Amino acid sequence: MTEDMLARRARLMGPNVPTFYRNPVHLVRGQGVWLWDAAGKRYLDCYNNVAHVGHCHPRVVAAIAGQAAVLNTHTRYLHDNVLDYIERLTGHLGHGISQAIMTCTGSEANDIALRMAQAVTGKTGIIATDNTYHGNTAAVSALSTRRPPIGGYPGHVRFVPAPDSLRPVGGSVDGQAQAFAAHVARAIAELEAAGHGFSGMILCPVFANEGLPAVAPGFLDPTVAVIRKAGGLVIADEVQPGFGRVGSHFWGHDWLGFAPDVVTVGKPMANGHPVGAVLARPDVMGAFREAFGYFNTFGGNPVSAAACLAVLDVMADEGLQAQAATVSAHVMDRMRALRHPLLAEVRGAGLFFGAEFVLDDAMTPATAFVADLVEAMVARGFLLNRIGRGANTLKIRPPLVFSLENADSLIDALEQALRETPVAA
Amino acid sequence: MTEDMLARRARLMGPNVPTFYRNPVHLVRGQGVWLWDAAGKRYLDCYNNVAHVGHCHPRVVAAIAGQAAVLNTHTRYLHDNVLDYIERLTGHLGHGISQAIMTCTGSEANDIALRMAQAVTGKTGIIATDNTYHGNTAAVSALSTRRPPIGGYPGHVRFVPAPDSLRPVGGSVDGQAQAFAAHVARAIAELEAAGHGFSGMILCPVFANEGLPAVAPGFLDPTVAVIRKAGGLVIADEVQPGFGRVGSHFWGHDWLGFAPDVVTVGKPMANGHPVGAVLARPDVMGAFREAFGYFNTFGGNPVSAAACLAVLDVMADEGLQAQAATVSAHVMDRMRALRHPLLAEVRGAGLFFGAEFVLDDAMTPATAFVADLVEAMVARGFLLNRIGRGANTLKIRPPLVFSLENADSLIDALEQALRETPVAA
Repeated sequence: MTEDMLARRARLMGPNVPTFYRNPVHLVRGQGVWLWDAAGKRYLDCYNNVAHVGHCHPRVVAAIAGQAAVLNTHTRYLHDNVLDYIERLTGHLGHGISQAIMTCTGSEANDIALRMAQAVTGKTGIIATDNTYHGNTAAVSALSTRRPPIGGYPGHVRFVPAPDSLRPVGGSVDGQAQAFAAHVARAIAELEAAGHGFSGMILCPVFANEGLPAVAPGFLDPTVAVIRKAGGLVIADEVQPGFGRVGSHFWGHDWLGFAPDVVTVGKPMANGHPVGAVLARPDVMGAFREAFGYFNTFGGNPVSAAACLAVLDVMADEGLQAQAATVSAHVMDRMRALRHPLLAEVRGAGLFFGAEFVLDDAMTPATAFVADLVEAMVARGFLLNRIGRGANTLKIRPPLVFSLENADSLIDALEQALRETPVAA
Repeated sequence: MTEDMLARRARLMGPNVPTFYRNPVHLVRGQGVWLWDAAGKRYLDCYNNVAHVGHCHPRVVAAIAGQAAVLNTHTRYLHDNVLDYIERLTGHLGHGISQAIMTCTGSEANDIALRMAQAVTGKTGIIATDNTYHGNTAAVSALSTRRPPIGGYPGHVRFVPAPDSLRPVGGSVDGQAQAFAAHVARAIAELEAAGHGFSGMILCPVFANEGLPAVAPGFLDPTVAVIRKAGGLVIADEVQPGFGRVGSHFWGHDWLGFAPDVVTVGKPMANGHPVGAVLARPDVMGAFREAFGYFNTFGGNPVSAAACLAVLDVMADEGLQAQAATVSAHVMDRMRALRHPLLAEVRGAGLFFGAEFVLDDAMTPATAFVADLVEAMVARGFLLNRIGRGANTLKIRPPLVFSLENADSLIDALEQALRETPVAA
């Protein structure tokens, strides 16, 4: 069955279409933190941040169905939903950020954010870390080092070494914040010398794709100072940390303690309905709207906005940000108690956890072991995955409705899988 | 009320956010070909192609609501909906095109299509007409001449003069196809001389944004021969003509009679739910999937695919392509009978019509008159708009459920508005 589906996928979607797991899972139903496959097997979802308030939340489904039956148009006509939503969402933001452009994906949002930095500065140079991912458009995918674009990386893109808790930039954890900032300063100088000039830096406040390194509030202060001094914009890609995931704060940048000029959002904001947004101060938005004609046919349509509003309603009424903080603390306590010869570090930022495994004191990634561990957990009915340069960090990032009980099931299973997964090839 | 909403929009969305009409319409409800504003005024929708099978079609709404309540995930898990849809959609395509990548917008689809041409050819040079629009990402918006990007147009983009029925490329309607192809050949030579090489040309088979010039089947034959000879790809942007709008055919390229290598779709495919797709031959898809890692979180999710499937079901069950052909012929008959001193030409391609107005024999665009005419029609309860370099062509592009009776109401109102709208400033 699964084999037939894989063959059918290859026929209809082509080669190299990514799937998860050695035996890709064929899901047919979801509810809250639970997912079921075609054979009726139930999985605890410890991975999917898109289903932010839980799979198929009835209030989000009702909002979509209700508005879809009444009207779905675009923002060249006037409609309350998009305005109500931007007002509600920007109400969660400080730093003078009060305006938004609605898009359909986080990729589209980041694609705009890059142009906002260009519009404000008149320059094109942009900096990202060397182990990140900010989306899939041509412009944004050039910020990822995973595969070079045809014709090579564009000259206006510069990469700096990603923060890493076990292999810190500059050699020491204590000096990493300054060393990171020094790399950014060097990249700015290179961009200016090359004639591109410097427009800004884009980063995820929890460095999610970099492997969720352990960074403390204040980590970016030296970097932000360098960016500001050079006249660039700070773009916070909040697609992963935003919307209460960090627990203590609604946004990752407020958790880390810096003031972005532009904030981008996507995945969780409508619980799976295709929505993204770029949020900015009026001066930044004005510069963009002056320099570029931008319209997005589906962006901010009444149905998408209704789905977005429902997610905020559910978050508030079910106290999901506070729950994320509570469950986060409990999971971290239990993860810190895990013992395994290859376990080098456990890390967390709200309801987002990493556990990094290495082979030796040289911090050689235990890639194969973590791959086996993920499969062992999937076999046990727990969906999670791995991240990091060496794909040796267990990645746990459940829907926000993940409970203390769910957390205990997960860690119990993880303890068992750690005992039973062979450490040597 | 509307004034308050405009102020609120400016506060929350920033300046220069596009709206339609001198007094932007505040829509609150839609059904079939009808839209209602907040004051209860009813409009006949003669413009919105996104609501392809009619606003709020109950079968599409039910498909979205039904699947949203059961499961919404991404294509890293297996699911039947996306496969069923790609199989159904590619079943409408010839030319060896049998595979797809699902996206959330037509812009994302065109952004991928450009990279497909790069992957196949190893080159980056791309050609578009000088009066077009293919979307809003950084890469794709550089193909539009409406506003230059920061730092100027990238060197790998070349523009050729857009076809025009009243001011033909090369000076004569009979010679326009050859003259257009000659401009493409020149642009290819320039790209090769500049070191970019030639990857392909992107065009809309009905040249919708160019003002829907009157071009006959076979028009692109010389151009396609030039592109093929140079080893480039032909990308058909079917966002506007596709999905049966041209009436006689499911696709614009089959109406015009050329074989594209890549087809992109968007707006109408899920009746307003945010969906787009890139369709290609396996060799083209394979080259892209080999050269680029691509994943789209929301693209091809089970809910979006369900909405897409419902649109194809409705089109088939309600015979909407055939209806488009019938209604098209009737509208063209009645438009050809229109008499007005400024009316230079009426044009149509299926359920997509243009009526161009000029001031004199030098074909000076009657921009102000057409602006007034559009407002007069809106006041009468008919939503339409204008296109073309001089914004002097009336643009009529209704949902596919537009009936003969709707068509007669529209033309009756247009006759009246033409009589009553002053021709001089």
